[in-house]
Amino acid sequence: MKDFQFYNPVKVVFGRKSFEKLGGLIPTGHTVVLIYGGGSVRRTGVLDRVQSALGDHPVVEFGGILPNPAYEKLMECVALVRSTPSPFLLAVGGGSVIDGTKFIAAAAPYGPGDPWEILSVRGKIREALPLGSVLTIPATGSEMNNGAVITRRQTREKLVFQNDQVFPRFAVMDPTVTFTLPADQTANGIVDAWVHVLEQYLTYDVETPLQDRQAQAVLSTLLETGPRVLAAPEDYDARASVMWSATAALNRVLSCGVVTDWATHLIGHEISALTDLAHGRTLACVLGPLLRHQVASKEGKLAGYGAAVFGHGFEDPREAALAAIDATEAFFHSLGVSTRLGDYLSDQTLLDEIPQRFTARRTTLGERGDITPDDVAGILADAW
Amino acid sequence: MKDFQFYNPVKVVFGRKSFEKLGGLIPTGHTVVLIYGGGSVRRTGVLDRVQSALGDHPVVEFGGILPNPAYEKLMECVALVRSTPSPFLLAVGGGSVIDGTKFIAAAAPYGPGDPWEILSVRGKIREALPLGSVLTIPATGSEMNNGAVITRRQTREKLVFQNDQVFPRFAVMDPTVTFTLPADQTANGIVDAWVHVLEQYLTYDVETPLQDRQAQAVLSTLLETGPRVLAAPEDYDARASVMWSATAALNRVLSCGVVTDWATHLIGHEISALTDLAHGRTLACVLGPLLRHQVASKEGKLAGYGAAVFGHGFEDPREAALAAIDATEAFFHSLGVSTRLGDYLSDQTLLDEIPQRFTARRTTLGERGDITPDDVAGILADAW
Repeated sequence: MKDFQFYNPVKVVFGRKSFEKLGGLIPTGHTVVLIYGGGSVRRTGVLDRVQSALGDHPVVEFGGILPNPAYEKLMECVALVRSTPSPFLLAVGGGSVIDGTKFIAAAAPYGPGDPWEILSVRGKIREALPLGSVLTIPATGSEMNNGAVITRRQTREKLVFQNDQVFPRFAVMDPTVTFTLPADQTANGIVDAWVHVLEQYLTYDVETPLQDRQAQAVLSTLLETGPRVLAAPEDYDARASVMWSATAALNRVLSCGVVTDWATHLIGHEISALTDLAHGRTLACVLGPLLRHQVASKEGKLAGYGAAVFGHGFEDPREAALAAIDATEAFFHSLGVSTRLGDYLSDQTLLDEIPQRFTARRTTLGERGDITPDDVAGILADAW
Repeated sequence: MKDFQFYNPVKVVFGRKSFEKLGGLIPTGHTVVLIYGGGSVRRTGVLDRVQSALGDHPVVEFGGILPNPAYEKLMECVALVRSTPSPFLLAVGGGSVIDGTKFIAAAAPYGPGDPWEILSVRGKIREALPLGSVLTIPATGSEMNNGAVITRRQTREKLVFQNDQVFPRFAVMDPTVTFTLPADQTANGIVDAWVHVLEQYLTYDVETPLQDRQAQAVLSTLLETGPRVLAAPEDYDARASVMWSATAALNRVLSCGVVTDWATHLIGHEISALTDLAHGRTLACVLGPLLRHQVASKEGKLAGYGAAVFGHGFEDPREAALAAIDATEAFFHSLGVSTRLGDYLSDQTLLDEIPQRFTARRTTLGERGDITPDDVAGILADAW
């Protein structure tokens, strides 16, 4: 096991009655800046429930943060926040809204430079505004971690930052609000969570049997409950398990002591940056070709994954590893998610542009840093 | 799944180099009150390593906190702490030392009544002193939770309290310090962690497939690595897995959304209160008879436990449940832990005294509150 540090101070309030606790989770004396997305939270009544739960807290609203949240839009909210007395940021939405709110929290007090530096050059975050989250889409785990992914439309960049000061103070999680999620968003969220787990699990072995089993626990549960929520969107217990599994997939428990490999996400982010394709779909397309490219080094873990999660019983380890990859893609297909970029996109210029970007940034990927831009070109071609 | 809240702000620093981080984890300006047990940390050199890691922090020492930590002894430390400027409490030891330190942290500022009220009448803890932990015995999980169990010798009581203000600020966990643990302490710790998991898992089903698998993950890992550390005490990776598994067993992740049943611990505490028998051994004796008494209501979960953890394949659920209980006791035996009270004790008066205590306190136990004092008498007789 590798040495590690773990810290996660997010208070989770989970269940049918979680909204009732919301008002008490925000200290008095703040103005709540209620931050949300494209308006579905208004249509579904979630925003009304939130406002009702906030009671006497003064509230200002900022909507319109769309998937792959845009720096340009977020900076509009930064301007609002800077003119708001004692703001407390409340993200109501999925990962894009929560990630965007984390950026706003760090950007509002940032200076003297441009807050984009937080992403572009790891500009130091000396302080951040307090924030909380009300989760509506189980997927990214952002409600219970300190990371965010932000897109800059102007330069078509999608970059990550992490900082302990942007942990949400709380995550309010009511599975009933996911009853009305469109099937594609439900499925994309399951794919996202699944890939998060694999990126902390399918790496070279450093003797972490507990963490491996904790990873399998999340995967087996998503395999069991994912199809159930698509078949019966109002199955409370299945929705609750999907929701808590997606949080468990990226609250960093699974990262403790293991080797991680975020290559699927890093390639996926480039696809979204260039095309705005939904995050979960980019991952679904990249994962299989990437794992097949890495099958020699990941063979043992892949075989164990196939046995533990899919119940495979192959004797030959290479055959077992390849079957596990196939079963993963078959599971995504069963959720209605295609694993071919060509099914979503028509312009193939990204097949050249993404490797060029990695070359320009001198980026190598993979748990051993041995996935070159040329390898990425091959992976993307296989994913088309 | 039941509604739940989860909050755990303990920073874990885990691994071979974790001691090096210790000095930086304690804010400057404090006097470190270094609290430890019977002196093994001095013999093994742990205390020297801690003092060296503390660098320039001023330090006062308080040793002598023995297993089943005694209120009377802890109050001596409270007196010391009250006369120390800006104290930061640092527990160096196992669960008894950490539990004792939590009590000291809450008791020092407590008033105007006697701090025993914290345990006897849930006296309100308005504030607590800051504390941190350096773990030397994987067992109780106290390093990463907000609970403590304290014994009063005078009245032979052993009682529990929980409060968010006594979360350790950090848990420093170096598996190498467990290389020199006596085999019986290693084994008792594994039994304690095992029973913690079962108390959050073997209850009536509320559709929590993720939590059930997370529980199985800890158990399967202890089953695999427990015998390894007894056979090869300096096997780093096995020691690391046992250590992290014991933390995972009671950092409350497994409690999320499930029904819990702490009856084994509550009966075990009474045995320790009356006899000072080691905590893990009391649990080993009580668990089997208690589960056999409850086999009708826990049958499904017990059968699933046997299949998942021990690989059983029984068709009849009652047979499967009973086999799972037998396998649990066989595992404890394989660690060198007897499951008969008569192997540890000679005076049988506790067989009457414990049920009388529960009757006097009007205590009923079990996830449905249906284990009566008479049932406890039968369970204890079976455990003798």
